[in-house]
Amino acid sequence: MKMTFLGTGAGVPAKHRNVSSLALHLMNKQGSIWLFDCGEATQHQILHTPIKTRKIEKIFITHCHGDHIYGLPGLLASRSFQGAESPLKIYGPTGIKEFIEISLTSSQTYLLYELEVIEISGDGKLFKDENWEVTTAKLDHGVPSFGYRIQQKDLPGPLLMSKVIKADIPKGPILQQLKDGQDIELSDGRKFDGRDFTGPAKKGKIVTILGDTRLSENAAMLAEDANTLVHEATFAADKELLAKEYFHSTTIQAANVAKEARVTQLILNHLSSRYQADDVQGLLAEAQTVFTNTVIAEDFATFDVPD
Amino acid sequence: MKMTFLGTGAGVPAKHRNVSSLALHLMNKQGSIWLFDCGEATQHQILHTPIKTRKIEKIFITHCHGDHIYGLPGLLASRSFQGAESPLKIYGPTGIKEFIEISLTSSQTYLLYELEVIEISGDGKLFKDENWEVTTAKLDHGVPSFGYRIQQKDLPGPLLMSKVIKADIPKGPILQQLKDGQDIELSDGRKFDGRDFTGPAKKGKIVTILGDTRLSENAAMLAEDANTLVHEATFAADKELLAKEYFHSTTIQAANVAKEARVTQLILNHLSSRYQADDVQGLLAEAQTVFTNTVIAEDFATFDVPD
Repeated sequence: MKMTFLGTGAGVPAKHRNVSSLALHLMNKQGSIWLFDCGEATQHQILHTPIKTRKIEKIFITHCHGDHIYGLPGLLASRSFQGAESPLKIYGPTGIKEFIEISLTSSQTYLLYELEVIEISGDGKLFKDENWEVTTAKLDHGVPSFGYRIQQKDLPGPLLMSKVIKADIPKGPILQQLKDGQDIELSDGRKFDGRDFTGPAKKGKIVTILGDTRLSENAAMLAEDANTLVHEATFAADKELLAKEYFHSTTIQAANVAKEARVTQLILNHLSSRYQADDVQGLLAEAQTVFTNTVIAEDFATFDVPD
Repeated sequence: MKMTFLGTGAGVPAKHRNVSSLALHLMNKQGSIWLFDCGEATQHQILHTPIKTRKIEKIFITHCHGDHIYGLPGLLASRSFQGAESPLKIYGPTGIKEFIEISLTSSQTYLLYELEVIEISGDGKLFKDENWEVTTAKLDHGVPSFGYRIQQKDLPGPLLMSKVIKADIPKGPILQQLKDGQDIELSDGRKFDGRDFTGPAKKGKIVTILGDTRLSENAAMLAEDANTLVHEATFAADKELLAKEYFHSTTIQAANVAKEARVTQLILNHLSSRYQADDVQGLLAEAQTVFTNTVIAEDFATFDVPD
């Protein structure tokens, strides 16, 4: 997995930091993308990346503030105009459905693909399929704001070729069945159990992406042992009172969540427009006093999710 | 008056042509701006101009297609965040009010200025104040799409200083009263009529800005004798059938409206994304075969309204 940050600012767009959105590349065969939040001009940002809107399969909205949702109607309309036919699912807090419906009907926009909008009813498992499990929990932001924990299913271990050669199993499509852990039977009648020919399963990755929030216990819960945690850092460490008043977090608070949850990597986003490019090093240094493996995301930055 | 084009593309944003918006600078003392349409990322485009959102006093929406309205919620919210306290009026077709209201309430956005949304009930005079008269009429676009004719009141003629000197009228604030055509009385008892000291009134300018439309009789009616006509030219001249099918105009059709209405200048916008930068000269040449004083607007182009 990897992620591309499409907007890393807070509240209002600035020249070099757009309002919130990030794309999670699942790196599967289909090239699926899940989008997290969709501030105004997210589709414009996408024009400057290799992302195709038809590859966006799901959109997760953390909360309904304008800087996280005003780009939805345009993105949905353009996805249709650009020829997407595959269905799209949107998850988000109560209210998101009406916003989308009224936006599309007011503008007489008819989508050529199936759109399903699922409003989150509470904390817990959002969905589980054969590859992914997504859990959500409410954070602390004045309006309902959710975090998402995306857990990848453990991946099958590698095919141990030395064992294959030793057992004199011929090459061919049968090796894929073996790699998948299936029982196979060769034309000479010999039978093998795939599980004897594969290494230990590779642990699936965990990515936690949070909406705007004050310091919140649920943040650490969602982020436990995550490979990557994306946490807002609207304010510098010295603005803790301001952060509390506006239901946001400081650099240090975000780093403390990462430390408590024992994540591998912390990525900070949602920086207040009061901070200029020159301030970013200072903000990063603050967070790193608590949690070393921290980075601050810029618009268009791409990060691999580490092992 | 002058105008700044903020988005000159059609339907979907492209890298160098955003969706529709244009700013009309009234060039009055207050530096008032009227915005025509507000496609997604209009507020982002404004960041790259000297325009301040608090100077936007009125927004005229030509029609409710997404590429003309999806930037409204973000612009309204940012105008408040950026400290505007002056009221804002929006005029637009039926449906625009619900779109704005649901967008703001879904996102729990509370504006710190007074917002009035006026839905257009039909053709005719939209409003008239001491400086401006705005008339509207429906065009031909499948959904209700309006054009706006903005007529400036005639400006008072210049103060004729040679006459002032000849009459031995002393300098001072009294000259402003004279310039305004008022009766004045000097301290020595002499009385003068301001109208005797001013040149002929200067004709107010007329600007006509149209929404998306097929070739329409109302277009020429709204544009009659205009100093500047802004007309869409979604398609090249050879795409007349396509233009009709999609309720749009060609370069030649727009030029014919300009010719019929005897305007001074024609500005074409709303170019289909099928046309690249290299195609623009050809599109312009087509229009100029019918109406010489034509230009094609690019994003961020600014044009003075000619005498």
